[in-house]
Amino acid sequence: MSNDLEQLRQQLDSINGQLLELISQRAEIAQEIGEVKNKQSINRFDPVRERKMLDELKSKNEGPFEDSTIEHIFKEIFKASLELQEDDHRKALLV
Amino acid sequence: MSNDLEQLRQQLDSINGQLLELISQRAEIAQEIGEVKNKQSINRFDPVRERKMLDELKSKNEGPFEDSTIEHIFKEIFKASLELQEDDHRKALLV
Repeated sequence: MSNDLEQLRQQLDSINGQLLELISQRAEIAQEIGEVKNKQSINRFDPVRERKMLDELKSKNEGPFEDSTIEHIFKEIFKASLELQEDDHRKALLV
Repeated sequence: MSNDLEQLRQQLDSINGQLLELISQRAEIAQEIGEVKNKQSINRFDPVRERKMLDELKSKNEGPFEDSTIEHIFKEIFKASLELQEDDHRKALLV
């Protein structure tokens, strides 16, 4: 294994860790949003807001990923967040 | 729209932007790794390394996402990175 590769892999590991932290922070905020929405009986899934976030991300995207790839990755994150909110809601109903 | 919700959404937008930056940085490093591997004729897909990264992420995961969700999201990022490396390789062959 060359040193180059080893160094690049260490950078990747560091970014993985930072991504995990941000994704977890994002999930916590999504949970708070879910709670606010429950109290106000607002639907948790908001396709207009989701489209707006995706458009914003694509307008900021400078590569190397294609816009379609960025959209795909973030849709997975959005979907996971929505599932989390729905789990929380189910748990709240069971209390 | 309540102020609470508006504020939480602003936090989410800020994190989305940070995630985009990190995901793009990660993609650039993956591209560099792809180049090094091409020069050394190493296979770009390395399932052992991928499993190691996923295990590392799951060991660090403190929620709120389940380990399986973290694994799913990161697998999508890994897959996109591999596709990027393969595109680069194809382009390099065409030059």
